[in-house]
Amino acid sequence: AFEGLTNELHPADVADLIGLLHEEDREALIALLGGALPAEVLAELDEDLLEHIIEVMGPAKVAEAVAELDTDDAAFVLEDLDEEKQAEILSYAPIEDRLALRAALDFEEESAGRLMQREFFASPAFWTVGQIIDRMRGTEELPDTFYEVFVVDPAFKPVGSVPLSTLLKSPRETVIETIMISRNMRTVPVTMDQEEVAYLFEQYNLISVPVVDDAERLIGMITVDDVVEMVREETHEDMLALGGVEADTGLNDTVFETVRSRFSWLAVNLVTAILASLVIALFDGAIGQIVALAVLMPIVASMGGNAGTQTLTVVVRSLATKDLTASNATRIVLREALVGLLNGVLFAIIMGALAGVWYFASGWGGQDDAMRLGLVVGVAMVVNLLCAGLAGILVPISLQRAGADPAVSSAVFVTTVTDVVGFFVFLGLAAAVLLPAAS
Amino acid sequence: AFEGLTNELHPADVADLIGLLHEEDREALIALLGGALPAEVLAELDEDLLEHIIEVMGPAKVAEAVAELDTDDAAFVLEDLDEEKQAEILSYAPIEDRLALRAALDFEEESAGRLMQREFFASPAFWTVGQIIDRMRGTEELPDTFYEVFVVDPAFKPVGSVPLSTLLKSPRETVIETIMISRNMRTVPVTMDQEEVAYLFEQYNLISVPVVDDAERLIGMITVDDVVEMVREETHEDMLALGGVEADTGLNDTVFETVRSRFSWLAVNLVTAILASLVIALFDGAIGQIVALAVLMPIVASMGGNAGTQTLTVVVRSLATKDLTASNATRIVLREALVGLLNGVLFAIIMGALAGVWYFASGWGGQDDAMRLGLVVGVAMVVNLLCAGLAGILVPISLQRAGADPAVSSAVFVTTVTDVVGFFVFLGLAAAVLLPAAS
Ligand SMILES: [Mg+2]
Ligand SMILES: [Mg+2]
Ligand SMILES: [Mg+2]
Ligand SMILES: [Mg+2]
Ligand SMILES: [Mg+2]
Ligand SMILES: [Mg+2]
Ligand SMILES: [Mg+2]
Ligand SMILES: [Mg+2]
Ligand SMILES: [Mg+2]
Ligand SMILES: [Mg+2]
Ligand SMILES: [Mg+2]
Ligand SMILES: [Mg+2]
Ligand SMILES: [Mg+2]
Repeated sequence: AFEGLTNELHPADVADLIGLLHEEDREALIALLGGALPAEVLAELDEDLLEHIIEVMGPAKVAEAVAELDTDDAAFVLEDLDEEKQAEILSYAPIEDRLALRAALDFEEESAGRLMQREFFASPAFWTVGQIIDRMRGTEELPDTFYEVFVVDPAFKPVGSVPLSTLLKSPRETVIETIMISRNMRTVPVTMDQEEVAYLFEQYNLISVPVVDDAERLIGMITVDDVVEMVREETHEDMLALGGVEADTGLNDTVFETVRSRFSWLAVNLVTAILASLVIALFDGAIGQIVALAVLMPIVASMGGNAGTQTLTVVVRSLATKDLTASNATRIVLREALVGLLNGVLFAIIMGALAGVWYFASGWGGQDDAMRLGLVVGVAMVVNLLCAGLAGILVPISLQRAGADPAVSSAVFVTTVTDVVGFFVFLGLAAAVLLPAAS
Repeated sequence: AFEGLTNELHPADVADLIGLLHEEDREALIALLGGALPAEVLAELDEDLLEHIIEVMGPAKVAEAVAELDTDDAAFVLEDLDEEKQAEILSYAPIEDRLALRAALDFEEESAGRLMQREFFASPAFWTVGQIIDRMRGTEELPDTFYEVFVVDPAFKPVGSVPLSTLLKSPRETVIETIMISRNMRTVPVTMDQEEVAYLFEQYNLISVPVVDDAERLIGMITVDDVVEMVREETHEDMLALGGVEADTGLNDTVFETVRSRFSWLAVNLVTAILASLVIALFDGAIGQIVALAVLMPIVASMGGNAGTQTLTVVVRSLATKDLTASNATRIVLREALVGLLNGVLFAIIMGALAGVWYFASGWGGQDDAMRLGLVVGVAMVVNLLCAGLAGILVPISLQRAGADPAVSSAVFVTTVTDVVGFFVFLGLAAAVLLPAAS
């Protein structure tokens, strides 16, 4: 029944089902399948399941499966193991696979080298369409699937590409040089960061791209299906980071792992919350005399936090999509400051009026004091929303310039600014304006 | 010089450059180019630039450009115009383009019908590889680029697909039926939501997919490059929504548009902040007597807000990637509750101790009161982080079941819960435990 299942279903669905099984059931299933999962299923498994399943299968069967895969998928299966384990598995693989895989694993994680497969189809510029088709029919050493012929010069440098549909539309005698796309052809250096690669695919609607080494020689190919997966992972990471969650955490983690990974971010937040509290503690005298301040102060801080998060979110996204660059940064900073200022004025009017009316109606004080309180709320709101806009853009830009990932650490800086500024300006002004001069 | 520019650069880069120009410069550039932008540039423009540029080009030139594009790109250019404007432009287009475009625009936005192009290559199952290649060489009516041959039965229902690389590897006399992929072939109904489509492409590593009508007849094709773009837009929207920013806003909006779009979310936040304030106001007597409560209360609320946001972010992502489904929802709810409880206990111990020590050291009260305050902080922390975990998962799941987008509206509900619960439990307990029985 299980054999039937893995034949009927797509490997990606089988991989998902395995993720839903308990550990013992997973082991039982692998035993039922003769001690190994099909190679294509391995390539689709969640990273956090791979280690266990490789353990269960043993090095010989893993080596056998890995040898069937394109190098990019093989590297994916092995990359998170420790080096000893990798070496053990590779020792069971045929020599040429072993060398190709070693090379793939030697490239940095998240680089083009890791993302590429060594299998591709290249042709010299003087070949004809007929020659190429005959060649494709004659050789076994082709990638499983490919979408373009890469045209290379005598030094194996890519000089053009021909989509297979163009190849098929052209008569047999057509020389490949006359139908190749050469202007605007993109090549990717093997060291390029994968987010750069994703940008190229998105911007230029690419399906596959040639990867070159330092000498600009063609050494591999990146295909769009792997880019789709990687883009999902990268945006996934960014979203989780903005929400204060470590990447590489998922629904399959144990409760203990989850507690640990969430704890660290909450601990950082505790420090900033205590910082904000210390600001409040500075003004305990004022709060003791006018309890209304304690009621109103979270509103100013919370509005600032939300406005800052809005700006921050837009800015982090714009940095990721390269819509925000050095050339328009100044303009956008001014724009966000202005937006913060204008929304600050709007909410200053709304909340200042509400606060004044509420203060008066509750019988906390006279009309005069109520108006002064409203004014304090309003000024604090304007200042805090302006600071929120500025922090929301300057913090992620500065982090990016310093080489840090703006998605990961910006939020805590921004809300610290808005909490501290919000409490300080509101309580400080209130103490100055509302307290009897004596105190 | 500009003509040269648009020839040298990729249309996507030209489109980006146009986005950086001021309105007058944009108009001048179009005039220089003979009153029209190249069709491929139009297809790459930001949505918010299209209206202005279409206005400047005029209906005749727009119709001419649109007729050059595949139907999906043509629909993209026209879809945000009002119906009158669309009709005016279409009246200038050749009759067959007009009908195809009308049909494309009649499909719902964000449906497979809108995403597909009408241009594809189909073959009956009994054709040979040689026949197909001859056919491709002989006809003009092929899509610009395509990646698969769709095999159809006599009723034009797709029954299999052949990647072009498979076609090229096979001898001329091979019958297409013997090399087509039929098991696991995916077809997309024309009404399918685009997020479903994206899921299929990601899950099954697709490059193109046949689109079928109600009668399961092949009527179009969706290609991966458009899916890459759409996935970016959808995750972009989700990220912005989680950050409290309306989708469809960008760096090119005017300050006024930005203020307006941010205002509405901040207004919602103001209401929930006021709600939280009302909870605080319930306990003004307690705060008046023990000002330390005002200092500590934001910490409990802020920790809850952050813990809730962590859970919410993970859940929204898991719903989008279908890792969280009805079958594992109960398990994940219990897991998040447990995680909230455990982190609650950890931070209860840390913050309870800190609060007690600080209270005592500041001379606010005696050792007894300090211990009771620490206990109150701790209990409030546990309760609020537990509620944060529960709200973080139950709110988005409920919204999704009710047919709403969990990314858009969850955050405000969750932080309302953590603010209200945080303030209420902390201040309520403090009033009960710490105040002299008399008051
Ligand atoms: Mg999967
Ligand atoms: Mg091999
Ligand atoms: Mg990995
Ligand atoms: Mg990266
Ligand atoms: Mg694109
Ligand atoms: Mg691959
Ligand atoms: Mg990243
Ligand atoms: Mg663009
Ligand atoms: Mg649109
Ligand atoms: Mg949608
Ligand atoms: Mg996949
Ligand atoms: Mg398209
Ligand atoms: Mg969505």
